[in-house]
Amino acid sequence: MSERGMLYVISAPSGCGKGTILSQVFNQPDKVFYSVSLTTRAPRENEVDGVHYHFVTKEQFEQMNANGDVLESAEYCGNFYGTPRIPVEENLAAGKDVVLEIETKGADQVRAMMPEAVFIFILPPSVAELRRRLLKRGTENATQVEMRVAQAVEEIKNAGKYDYILVNDELEKAVDDFKTVIRAARLEKRKNIDLIDEVLKDA
Amino acid sequence: MSERGMLYVISAPSGCGKGTILSQVFNQPDKVFYSVSLTTRAPRENEVDGVHYHFVTKEQFEQMNANGDVLESAEYCGNFYGTPRIPVEENLAAGKDVVLEIETKGADQVRAMMPEAVFIFILPPSVAELRRRLLKRGTENATQVEMRVAQAVEEIKNAGKYDYILVNDELEKAVDDFKTVIRAARLEKRKNIDLIDEVLKDA
Repeated sequence: MSERGMLYVISAPSGCGKGTILSQVFNQPDKVFYSVSLTTRAPRENEVDGVHYHFVTKEQFEQMNANGDVLESAEYCGNFYGTPRIPVEENLAAGKDVVLEIETKGADQVRAMMPEAVFIFILPPSVAELRRRLLKRGTENATQVEMRVAQAVEEIKNAGKYDYILVNDELEKAVDDFKTVIRAARLEKRKNIDLIDEVLKDA
Repeated sequence: MSERGMLYVISAPSGCGKGTILSQVFNQPDKVFYSVSLTTRAPRENEVDGVHYHFVTKEQFEQMNANGDVLESAEYCGNFYGTPRIPVEENLAAGKDVVLEIETKGADQVRAMMPEAVFIFILPPSVAELRRRLLKRGTENATQVEMRVAQAVEEIKNAGKYDYILVNDELEKAVDDFKTVIRAARLEKRKNIDLIDEVLKDA
């Protein structure tokens, strides 16, 4: 029997470099499953079903939710977003690590349903630096950036609920810290508690 | 102000290679303080006061304990053993990491007084392997080895109270795991929680 995979729930405000860090940490696609979210909104140009999102109807979403097949969900602008439970469970059972990139409210829901998950929050060095990064990116105007910053502040206020808190100040250090946490999580008591019985079985 | 050091409480049955692992992990004496235990027993030949133990009288020990200056203590064969609190506090305040190598009952006492400490337990791969190692060491007869093994089993039953559980199967891997835990412990929420306020202070 292959060892069950680890479930990592990762939250970080937009502009914290989460995508860059994750692509460097989880760079073995055969060992890691990135959860693809459900959404009831219409696909945008270039968005591929099953890659960027699983596009479903509102009725499908509600049916899945009623069946207990949505791990966490949220509503934005009248559309539903969520994490499908079955692919997460199947990949964990197959020994793959599973990565959920979700917001803090979704993380609260996963924490309630799957407390064995490892919760990691990536902080920016400061709110001022976050604003600088978002402005530098140049994809949004000043008003939109301020909305992002306000949203980030709300997310950051919830960082204390996570198991590990990392700062992305220098990318290389952040990647290194992330790798350390991933390895140490397997040595935590809650993961290794069965070892005690195993060691004692010939006592 | 220098950052406060980390307190590591490490337990492992005799024969788990704890000494070897620690000497490879904590190899910078200017950054690490190994706590020296108090004892009321008489020094053995070659034992140096302040190096192997702080040798004290029973009255001195009781006075320290009454003053709250003993972090944890135990009695064996009519003698008292314990960890002096003040050197631990002073070194942590000076930014040094502090290592306590103690048994599980002592660890229970430290956990109650200093829950911020990081508790690490080192397991042998199996009880049979522990017995083989103790016999191979050849310093004790078969009866003494069986007593050690029985004591080890009792200690191992308490491993579930520790934050991290490591197995010393291959030394190199165990040292590597230990280093990972030491690094990750600094990224745990309980250590990094102040970062949230720091990041938010310019929000």
